[in-house]
Amino acid sequence: MLIYGKNTVTEVLKNKKEVKKIYLSTELNDNNLIQMAKKTHAEITFMPRAKMNQLFNGNHQGVVAEIVEYEYKTLNEVIKKCENKNAVIAMLDGLEDPHNLGAILRSADATGVDAIIIPKNRSVSLNSTVAKVSTGAIEHVDTVQVTNLVMTLKELKKQGYWVIGLELDGSVDYRKQDYTGKIVVVIGSEGKGISRLVKEECDFCVNIPMYGHVNSLNASVSAAILFYEILRNRGK
Amino acid sequence: MLIYGKNTVTEVLKNKKEVKKIYLSTELNDNNLIQMAKKTHAEITFMPRAKMNQLFNGNHQGVVAEIVEYEYKTLNEVIKKCENKNAVIAMLDGLEDPHNLGAILRSADATGVDAIIIPKNRSVSLNSTVAKVSTGAIEHVDTVQVTNLVMTLKELKKQGYWVIGLELDGSVDYRKQDYTGKIVVVIGSEGKGISRLVKEECDFCVNIPMYGHVNSLNASVSAAILFYEILRNRGK
Repeated sequence: MLIYGKNTVTEVLKNKKEVKKIYLSTELNDNNLIQMAKKTHAEITFMPRAKMNQLFNGNHQGVVAEIVEYEYKTLNEVIKKCENKNAVIAMLDGLEDPHNLGAILRSADATGVDAIIIPKNRSVSLNSTVAKVSTGAIEHVDTVQVTNLVMTLKELKKQGYWVIGLELDGSVDYRKQDYTGKIVVVIGSEGKGISRLVKEECDFCVNIPMYGHVNSLNASVSAAILFYEILRNRGK
Repeated sequence: MLIYGKNTVTEVLKNKKEVKKIYLSTELNDNNLIQMAKKTHAEITFMPRAKMNQLFNGNHQGVVAEIVEYEYKTLNEVIKKCENKNAVIAMLDGLEDPHNLGAILRSADATGVDAIIIPKNRSVSLNSTVAKVSTGAIEHVDTVQVTNLVMTLKELKKQGYWVIGLELDGSVDYRKQDYTGKIVVVIGSEGKGISRLVKEECDFCVNIPMYGHVNSLNASVSAAILFYEILRNRGK
């Protein structure tokens, strides 16, 4: 799997993720990055930027790395990790846009969200666009891919989690909700919101009030507003 | 100028913006939209979706419209409009990504931001990607394009505006800032934040605290968090 761009590759090198190959532009002026690359056991190839443009489609900024695939955690690993804390898990119900997933990972990292859950089907998954947009957060936020969101919520409820859905027509202003304890917040997809069966599992539904003409916010924007509200509610 | 997609075109038709031509896929099943299109004086062409894919690059969903260019307001028009209210203006210093501008317009509409100011050079401007991502908010939020951000801030300060910059190293937690009165909030670009000369015009600098590994949030995410904080601070 190829990843592109200075920030993304730097973050991967910092985390000593297994890197197979690194391609660097001969015009690159970033000694720090070059030194870091040399410290890995990866094969390093220098080539003119023009050649890189031919080889790679992404916006590479003169830096491309070939790494092993992004790894998912299992639900059990996450449940275990969060056993003794008031965890926050975000479930993304059918998100399609890699830019949104990348931005959500970034906000999740910034606000200490413990894990992200995405479905295996009809959803964007971890890929190089997500990695790039996440500016490295993909390396720090545990992501779980599950086959069935409803079953997953049932399991988390058994483990003592409260489920809070973020919906346009959610009944409670997001600022009036109590976010203490272990919680799962469910964010709907760009077009369709939260699917019916998943919504039925929500213990609470909150909305972000809107005072204009458009009827929804960008999914990564609503997620971040909710994450920061949880922090505030928890006195952080 | 071409715009793509059901939501964007619907929003344009609703606002009776001057539409020159409308292209609709013969597979389109949206009677509401077809009726609206027929009510305009635009030339309507039906064609198979496959043909549309050949003609248009964007993600058109079977709906494309040719409209007159997006119009900017002048700074004076905005100052006049906001004369008798505690206006909120957002200045975007060198934003490059049309997805970010689109999402910011959407959040600005939702939170009642009175105008967006962008520079003429080294910045994304209103285009069809911005329109699409904004899901129609581009029609409702006044946007001003200026040649010089510093001069613009000086003028706004003369008119009684306070300037609040949002920076990674801003000295005040964004939740502790007073947002009453007429204000301009300045959002930096994706990579470089707020430029030095613009920063020197800021009366206050606020930051959004981050508790993870990455060192910044997505620009449209930070803008939205700040817009919603202003609403809260104003008791809405």
